[in-house]
Amino acid sequence: MITLPGISIDERYRLSDLYAAYTGCIDAGRFGEWPEFFTEECVYRVVARENYDRGFPLAAISLESKRMLHDRVYGITETIFHEPYYQRHVVSLPNVWRDGDAFRVEANYLVVRSKAGTPSELYSAGRYLDRVIDQHGRLLFAEKICVYDSEVISNSLIYPI
Amino acid sequence: MITLPGISIDERYRLSDLYAAYTGCIDAGRFGEWPEFFTEECVYRVVARENYDRGFPLAAISLESKRMLHDRVYGITETIFHEPYYQRHVVSLPNVWRDGDAFRVEANYLVVRSKAGTPSELYSAGRYLDRVIDQHGRLLFAEKICVYDSEVISNSLIYPI
Amino acid sequence: MITLPGISIDERYRLSDLYAAYTGCIDAGRFGEWPEFFTEECVYRVVARENYDRGFPLAAISLESKRMLHDRVYGITETIFHEPYYQRHVVSLPNVWRDGDAFRVEANYLVVRSKAGTPSELYSAGRYLDRVIDQHGRLLFAEKICVYDSEVISNSLIYPI
Repeated sequence: MITLPGISIDERYRLSDLYAAYTGCIDAGRFGEWPEFFTEECVYRVVARENYDRGFPLAAISLESKRMLHDRVYGITETIFHEPYYQRHVVSLPNVWRDGDAFRVEANYLVVRSKAGTPSELYSAGRYLDRVIDQHGRLLFAEKICVYDSEVISNSLIYPI
Repeated sequence: MITLPGISIDERYRLSDLYAAYTGCIDAGRFGEWPEFFTEECVYRVVARENYDRGFPLAAISLESKRMLHDRVYGITETIFHEPYYQRHVVSLPNVWRDGDAFRVEANYLVVRSKAGTPSELYSAGRYLDRVIDQHGRLLFAEKICVYDSEVISNSLIYPI
Repeated sequence: MITLPGISIDERYRLSDLYAAYTGCIDAGRFGEWPEFFTEECVYRVVARENYDRGFPLAAISLESKRMLHDRVYGITETIFHEPYYQRHVVSLPNVWRDGDAFRVEANYLVVRSKAGTPSELYSAGRYLDRVIDQHGRLLFAEKICVYDSEVISNSLIYPI
């Protein structure tokens, strides 16, 4: 078993709360708040597992600052033509370890999508590979890599994962 | 990040156990025990997200006392004609906060349904919006609102969510 | 509510980490490490719920030592002809209690499968019924029973659940 020295119970709960708040925010469609979970200089990427495992740089989405996340939100809410849908995230028990001043967190996720008049469908399954830092008492994502297992969903990827 | 003052580690674990026990009970089909997770005066509602978000009172199921939950169980097990199926709940990391003497808990859920001879299928995705109270050392649901994302599943809703 | 005497916070976290590490290992396809989560004398079974509930001994997979798990891994990676696929596990909040020197853990799981060029699909839903022991400071599965709800998936069962 992996032992996790140096992660206190309080830190674990704060990390658990971070993920609950993050998924709660985007599943409620409060996309305007989404960038506030990140540091100013940050990395947000959504990458196919095949590309990630091979070290290919190709990503469905690649954003490299909070400003770019805000631009993305503007795109989602103001300019991208799309049929609205609901998202629902379920995140599994995380692996957590310390990496210098940061936390590394890895956790499996499922995203279920629901559109008006159709049954809920499994939309994306994958794994978060995240680096989280404590900035003035708030936990923020310095890096969030969403590695999704299935290759065919990315063309419809609009909302944050 | 949301901070959660006033929730102790023990209380968090007891809440986590409540959800594990609740879903364990209904997924095992022990519906007779289901009302015992609620207070005498309680609210159990299953509501479409569209209606909930707009404040519409319409609910697929709306029960307002433990007695009504018992009646519902009687209906499920004795009178409703339906093909039996298995349920399997997965609940994500919860948001928890204190609300007076009660706890508020919000958590995403998925329910998978399995019928004889067919593959398991995604049945419902949604969010629990719950109020939990401590009654003589036992945590009980004073209010459990199950807000489901997809509109088309409710006509087949038989077992508790 | 079920009370859980005798399980400390540290023990709970170590159990949570065990499941996160276990699913992380098999979802990453590191099958060679999979037997290392088990004791030398162990039981690993994958059983249909119908058979389990009726006490029938029939199991899709039944292995009774770490050596047999290693043989299974050899079969998966070297001899079984199959189209590769990705797995992604999500495990729900567990029920935990003490059973002599061991822990009993029960938790719902979903497994999503992804194959090249097709959408991710729900592959298996079920419940882990596990006995975990602490061996020289490491938590290991002495018994892992995977009870799956749907009957039709077992013929395609290749990778560990």
